[in-house]
Amino acid sequence: MVRSVLPERSSDGGSARLEAFSDGILAIAITLLVIEIRIPSVNGSHLGAALRHLWPSYLAYGLSFTTIGFVWVAHHSMFRRVRDVDRLLLILNLGLMLCVAFLPFSTAVLARYSFTESSGAAPAAELYSINMLVIGLAFMSLWVYLSFHLSLFVGDVDKRTIQRTILRAAPPPVVYALTAALSFVNAKVCYVLWVLATLYVAIGPAARKIPVWVDAAVKSMDEEDRGPGSAK
Amino acid sequence: MVRSVLPERSSDGGSARLEAFSDGILAIAITLLVIEIRIPSVNGSHLGAALRHLWPSYLAYGLSFTTIGFVWVAHHSMFRRVRDVDRLLLILNLGLMLCVAFLPFSTAVLARYSFTESSGAAPAAELYSINMLVIGLAFMSLWVYLSFHLSLFVGDVDKRTIQRTILRAAPPPVVYALTAALSFVNAKVCYVLWVLATLYVAIGPAARKIPVWVDAAVKSMDEEDRGPGSAK
Amino acid sequence: MVRSVLPERSSDGGSARLEAFSDGILAIAITLLVIEIRIPSVNGSHLGAALRHLWPSYLAYGLSFTTIGFVWVAHHSMFRRVRDVDRLLLILNLGLMLCVAFLPFSTAVLARYSFTESSGAAPAAELYSINMLVIGLAFMSLWVYLSFHLSLFVGDVDKRTIQRTILRAAPPPVVYALTAALSFVNAKVCYVLWVLATLYVAIGPAARKIPVWVDAAVKSMDEEDRGPGSAK
Amino acid sequence: MVRSVLPERSSDGGSARLEAFSDGILAIAITLLVIEIRIPSVNGSHLGAALRHLWPSYLAYGLSFTTIGFVWVAHHSMFRRVRDVDRLLLILNLGLMLCVAFLPFSTAVLARYSFTESSGAAPAAELYSINMLVIGLAFMSLWVYLSFHLSLFVGDVDKRTIQRTILRAAPPPVVYALTAALSFVNAKVCYVLWVLATLYVAIGPAARKIPVWVDAAVKSMDEEDRGPGSAK
Repeated sequence: MVRSVLPERSSDGGSARLEAFSDGILAIAITLLVIEIRIPSVNGSHLGAALRHLWPSYLAYGLSFTTIGFVWVAHHSMFRRVRDVDRLLLILNLGLMLCVAFLPFSTAVLARYSFTESSGAAPAAELYSINMLVIGLAFMSLWVYLSFHLSLFVGDVDKRTIQRTILRAAPPPVVYALTAALSFVNAKVCYVLWVLATLYVAIGPAARKIPVWVDAAVKSMDEEDRGPGSAK
Repeated sequence: MVRSVLPERSSDGGSARLEAFSDGILAIAITLLVIEIRIPSVNGSHLGAALRHLWPSYLAYGLSFTTIGFVWVAHHSMFRRVRDVDRLLLILNLGLMLCVAFLPFSTAVLARYSFTESSGAAPAAELYSINMLVIGLAFMSLWVYLSFHLSLFVGDVDKRTIQRTILRAAPPPVVYALTAALSFVNAKVCYVLWVLATLYVAIGPAARKIPVWVDAAVKSMDEEDRGPGSAK
Repeated sequence: MVRSVLPERSSDGGSARLEAFSDGILAIAITLLVIEIRIPSVNGSHLGAALRHLWPSYLAYGLSFTTIGFVWVAHHSMFRRVRDVDRLLLILNLGLMLCVAFLPFSTAVLARYSFTESSGAAPAAELYSINMLVIGLAFMSLWVYLSFHLSLFVGDVDKRTIQRTILRAAPPPVVYALTAALSFVNAKVCYVLWVLATLYVAIGPAARKIPVWVDAAVKSMDEEDRGPGSAK
Repeated sequence: MVRSVLPERSSDGGSARLEAFSDGILAIAITLLVIEIRIPSVNGSHLGAALRHLWPSYLAYGLSFTTIGFVWVAHHSMFRRVRDVDRLLLILNLGLMLCVAFLPFSTAVLARYSFTESSGAAPAAELYSINMLVIGLAFMSLWVYLSFHLSLFVGDVDKRTIQRTILRAAPPPVVYALTAALSFVNAKVCYVLWVLATLYVAIGPAARKIPVWVDAAVKSMDEEDRGPGSAK
């Protein structure tokens, strides 16, 4: 690509274009979720019942929509602080997108098998758990990579702040790892845990009261805290 | 996410990025509507008739396309005036997007069952009415939330102006609530009411002559009107 | 919407946002075309033949892709010159988008029936012709509307220049009206005419040599030509 | 279109808008890949096995996702250096988009036939190879066209730099031409070669050590090298 030789129109470091492309993928993945809800093919007199029986599809749609929605929020929140994008960050981001764009498939499998056919509930919950877990890990890999390349950020960045952010983003992947293990024991419990994880993400890791144990963990690995600014 | 600690590339308050993401979702949802029109699988000699028999699909496509189109217009008209986006506004907007992105499903159900099989017309119209009603309510929830957080707007904003906007946006949800009640009585009347509601939206609540009763309602709750500027 | 009362973040006249939304719809419609090409469900040993028999799908894909591609080019070419978007222009543009977003359906019907089942070729070509004709007319309606509202343009605009542009855009709709009439006579001739119309659009009405008769028509209705600048 | 006569809002040369439209198409094509993975329709007790048997779909999804992802990277890398877009460049770019947007179909055929039915593996690999080859050639056609129209670039550009870029982009198309020839001999070897070609693209032609033979080729046709700047 011989980048340094050919002159460029603008030198934004690539962060803006990466955001725009990722936004496009996330917006499409979130909207494709509905495509996988099957239109009932029944006699008209059974349509009402058929639509009600699709409630696992509606629930799965809601769960995945909310998840992708907050992946978008968190993604923007990250790249707003990033100035330069190097090749490995680009690849890690593409990996995250690959996992998120796969979610319409996992969601459709979950919706179709989770409640209607009991023996299919376990592998469906397993697939969904693994997909969500991998999304969480891919997202954390971006933060971890950035924490080792602080020069990619917009201004001066404190490494401890990044580590705290990573810890605060940890609970959802932990939950999905747990439901991956639980799916063959009790698939219904998984749903409860997913809703809780989604609520945790929605309310926001930034909300001060909730992740008390996270703050404790941060404090234990970070004794010399620098005043109220970084403690927020 | 420890926002205040990490420096950012730009501090646009998040309104522009929320608009771009919402625009993406709306553009995709509006274009996915056509995917749900089933390609006829008939003998070639019956194709002409099969295409003509799809007219409920074409009508439903037109209705939903127009609705999403004007949701986009109204959404832009709202966020053009918003400077700061807080977490709850973000979640309310995601809720609106969730409802709009669901419309391709409701539209497909409506198209398939509304006219071809009479006993399926009622639940199909019911589903469509509820989807449209919830879109309207989600949209109003954004205005209501903003009316209690005037500091999120670009400049100084008069609370009464917002209330008037909310009242002007009220007729369509009222119509959809009505058709939700009517769908089991007469599904065909619902279509007529939907077309009227869509025309109301298309012609625009800003058009001065039409919603006279709305203006009357506004005036009764708002005696001291400040001249021609706010009366527009 | 009480536009004049609430302050706005920017006053771009709405042209940029309308372009972005239209671009989104066009990009999605153009990409959805491939979704409608059916994956063959055959025994592996017949896959090669099945893929070759899909050639009407490939041709229809190419035709519609090129058409939407140049609708995008022409749309951008128009709105680059527009500064203000009023409500009727917005509605006309939504109408154009509605017709373009419908094209994946017409294309799929054409691909499935045009060559494989002879008796289905006529209605399939008819549907496609009408869809393309309506796209052309919707596009011209935008130019015609603009020609009566020159104040919406960026700078001073000569009404004759607009009329010339409209005339130059006329040949494709004329061809599609012709194939709409011809489809029940000979569907194969329609394909030839469509390819020619697409080539005309691709080579560009701006190319000086081709639409000689158009220039003659313009000249006859426009005797007092103002020098080489407007003649271009 | 009478471009020179009507005034324009901005004169960006068309490069930014072409990028935005292409980005939209690429983002949609990459996200549509998942749509083509068929949700298993099996008895719940066989779902686990059915999901595992879909591994060719997952592999094909990963391959095509990565390919489109790096087409996006390379496309941006190219157009960041382009200031003016003329009609032929526009058409060449539309040709590239047409080929990329077709990939979800080839990917779905590959996933369905490559491993499950041995006699279908050859034509499926053939289709995929040809699609990828044509994408590569379309991409190179853009570089070749630009190398003959250096005035379209942002600043002063050395023709040799462009030629070197073209040569560096050559290995993947060569691999796909090879697998197009090999597909009827051994479809499984094709997969290995595709993964290698994707890795080559991912690691980046800019990486200095890998394409040694390319540098040798460049050097042989380019004896008078101008110092370390252009040698990079």
